[in-house]
Amino acid sequence: MQFSTSFIPDIRFGRGLFGSLVDMVRNLEGTRAVLVVMDGFLAARGLAKELAGQLADAGIEPRLYSEFSGEPKLQHLQDASAIAAGADVVIGVGGGSALDIAKIAACCGASGEDPMFYALAANPLPKNPLKKIMVPTTAGTGSETSATNIFAGPSGKKLWIWGAQTKADLVLLDPELTISLPPHLTAWCGMDAFIHAFEAATNRNAHTGAKLYAHEAMRLVAGSLEAAVKAPGNIEARGRVQLGSCYAGIAIDNCGTAIAHNISHALAGIGAVHHGLATALGFEATLSWLVERETPDLNEAARAIGLSEAAQLPGFVSELMDRCGVERALPKAFADFSAEDLAEEMRAPENQPMRRSTIHEVTDADIEVFAAKMMALAITP
Amino acid sequence: MQFSTSFIPDIRFGRGLFGSLVDMVRNLEGTRAVLVVMDGFLAARGLAKELAGQLADAGIEPRLYSEFSGEPKLQHLQDASAIAAGADVVIGVGGGSALDIAKIAACCGASGEDPMFYALAANPLPKNPLKKIMVPTTAGTGSETSATNIFAGPSGKKLWIWGAQTKADLVLLDPELTISLPPHLTAWCGMDAFIHAFEAATNRNAHTGAKLYAHEAMRLVAGSLEAAVKAPGNIEARGRVQLGSCYAGIAIDNCGTAIAHNISHALAGIGAVHHGLATALGFEATLSWLVERETPDLNEAARAIGLSEAAQLPGFVSELMDRCGVERALPKAFADFSAEDLAEEMRAPENQPMRRSTIHEVTDADIEVFAAKMMALAITP
Repeated sequence: MQFSTSFIPDIRFGRGLFGSLVDMVRNLEGTRAVLVVMDGFLAARGLAKELAGQLADAGIEPRLYSEFSGEPKLQHLQDASAIAAGADVVIGVGGGSALDIAKIAACCGASGEDPMFYALAANPLPKNPLKKIMVPTTAGTGSETSATNIFAGPSGKKLWIWGAQTKADLVLLDPELTISLPPHLTAWCGMDAFIHAFEAATNRNAHTGAKLYAHEAMRLVAGSLEAAVKAPGNIEARGRVQLGSCYAGIAIDNCGTAIAHNISHALAGIGAVHHGLATALGFEATLSWLVERETPDLNEAARAIGLSEAAQLPGFVSELMDRCGVERALPKAFADFSAEDLAEEMRAPENQPMRRSTIHEVTDADIEVFAAKMMALAITP
Repeated sequence: MQFSTSFIPDIRFGRGLFGSLVDMVRNLEGTRAVLVVMDGFLAARGLAKELAGQLADAGIEPRLYSEFSGEPKLQHLQDASAIAAGADVVIGVGGGSALDIAKIAACCGASGEDPMFYALAANPLPKNPLKKIMVPTTAGTGSETSATNIFAGPSGKKLWIWGAQTKADLVLLDPELTISLPPHLTAWCGMDAFIHAFEAATNRNAHTGAKLYAHEAMRLVAGSLEAAVKAPGNIEARGRVQLGSCYAGIAIDNCGTAIAHNISHALAGIGAVHHGLATALGFEATLSWLVERETPDLNEAARAIGLSEAAQLPGFVSELMDRCGVERALPKAFADFSAEDLAEEMRAPENQPMRRSTIHEVTDADIEVFAAKMMALAITP
C-alpha cells in the first residue's frame, strides 16, 4: 500500500453560513481588496450587491466579476485576472465555471501573467497566489476541493490549468445557496458528484487515501439525492449532497476519473450539453461493461452504498437515475452528428488519460459500441 | 448540522518512503538550509547522519537538533528555534516530542520570538513560518496532523502553543520507521491513537466532518494493533496503525479529547508516566460510566468497529488491551501519591476543557471515584 493525498483546505459547512463570509474574510489579516467572481444569475438576484455592501462596511474594497456564462473561456479568465490584480483575496461563488475562473484569477492576478502562460502546465504556477475562498452553489463540480481548472482556449479547444497553487484556502458550504437549483440540475450535478467519487474509487489510480472520501461521497449522494431533487427545500438532503460533492472533489483531486468522463468530455467536444447529464449518460452506458472486471475496488464501492457486490451497481445506478428523474436524452443538436464523430472525440489525445485510467481496458471496438449507444440518445423517440 | 474542519496537509504514505525525503525537500523550490529535529536514539542509530549526507549531496545545508529527551521543555524549543533561524524547512522525525519541537521551531525560527511569546495564545503566530515536514516514527501522537503543541514551561508546568501556523505542510508516513518500537510502546501509542479517535468522535464537540477520520482511525487501529504488537515486522499492520494514528490526529485537531485525556494529563501532573499508557488506563477506568449516556455518537462509534451498540464498547476495549498485552499498572512512583492528589490535578484549570467536553457530565463525585480507581493501579499487587 502506497499513496499520496494532496492537502485539503479548511471546510466550513452549515446552513446560513454564507452570511458569515465577510467575517471569514476579515479574519484573513491585512485584506484590503476582494474580487468576487459570481455567476451572473446569482449577481442579478442581488447576492453580489449584498456581499459588496458588507465588504465595504467592513472597510474592504469590493470588486466584482460576473460577465461570463457557460463554460469558462480564455477571455473570462483574462478579464477576471485583470480585476484581481492588486486584490488580496478572490472569492468564487457559483457553479464549477465561477470557481474555476476565480481560482485561475487568483494565480494570474498575483503574477500578472496571462492564463495561457500556465495552460497545459507550460510554466510553474506562482508560489504566492491570492487567497482563495470557494463557495459552490451547485453540488456536483467538486472544483472547490480540486486543483484542476478547465477552460476553452483561443481556438475553442478545452484546455486546463492544474496545480496545488490553484486550490482553495477555504471552502464554504452553505446548502441554502443550492435551493434555487432546479430539480433537473440538482439531479445532473448530483449524478456527476456520485460518478466523480465512483470513478476515483475504482479506476487504476484508486488508493486507500482517496477511497475514504470517495466512499463517504457515494454514501452521502446516493442516500440523499432523490430527496434533494423531489423536495428542493429539504436542506438536510441538500447539505448531504453538497458535502458528498465536496468529498468527491477531494477524491478526483487525488485519483482522477475514468470512462464516463472520457465520454462526457468527448460529447462536449461536439456540442453543448450539461456536463452532469453527459457524464450520467456515459456512466449508465458503460457500467455493466465496467463491472465485468469485478475488482476488489468495484466490490468495495458497491458495499459502500449497501450493495453486496459490483454486479448490482448497474441496476442501482439506473434506478437512482429513474428516481431522480434523469431523462435519457442528449440535446437535439447532437442528432446532426454520427457515432463515428463521437468515437473520434473519445479517441482524441486530450481524452486518453480518462480512457487509460479505466480499470477495464477500453478497446477501439468498445469505443465504437459506447459511441453508438450514446448517439442513439440524440434521437428523440 | 454545522461544522468546520481545519486544513489537512499533503500526506505521503508508503513503506520505504523515508528514502525519498530528500527528493521531497528538493521539490520545495529555493530550499538552501534544513533543520532536522530528530529523536536522540534515532540520530544515534545513524539516521541523522544519513539524512544530513543526502541533504548535503543535494546542495542543501543540513542542521540537526537532537539534544532532547522525554516531554519537550522550553529550553529544547529555544535551542531548536535558534538553529532553525535562517533555514527554509524544518523536518521533525520521531515521536510526539520531536514533532512538537519541530513545529514550534518552524514558527519561532521564522519570527525570532521566544516560544513563551506564543504560549497559551499570548500573541498571534507568525503568518509565514518555515515549511514543515513531519515524519512520525511512533504511531499514536497524531501531532503530525494537529495544531496543538505541548511543552513544559519555565516552572515545569505544562503549556501549549496552538495554531494552524504550526501545522505540517507535508506528512510522511513510512511504517518501516516504526519497526524498532518495542511491543509495549506500540501498544501504548496505538491505544492513545484509538482513544484520540474515540474521544473526538463522541465528545461534545464531535461533528460529521471529523467523524469521517475518527471512525476510519478506530477501524484501522482496532483492526491491526494486536498484529502490530505481536509481530513487530508486520509492515502491513504497522502501516494501518500508523495511518489510523494520523487520521486520529485530524480528528482531535478538530474536536479535541475528553475524560481519558483529563486523567492522563492529570497523571502527568504528578509523576512521569507514558502518555499512551496513562490515557489507556484512564479510558478503561471511565468507559463503562461514559457509555451509560448511550448517545447516537457513542453508538455510531461502536458500529464503526463492528459492534452493535455502545454498551459493548467497554468489553471490546478491555479485550483489545488484553490482546495487546497492556499491563494495568502505573509506575511505582505513583504509590507515593493519594487519590486526592490525582483528583486535585483532574480539577486543575488546565484540565477542565477535557472534563467539560466529555459527553457525560463529570461531577466532583465522579472525579473522586475515577481518581481512586486510577491510584489503585499504582499499588503493585
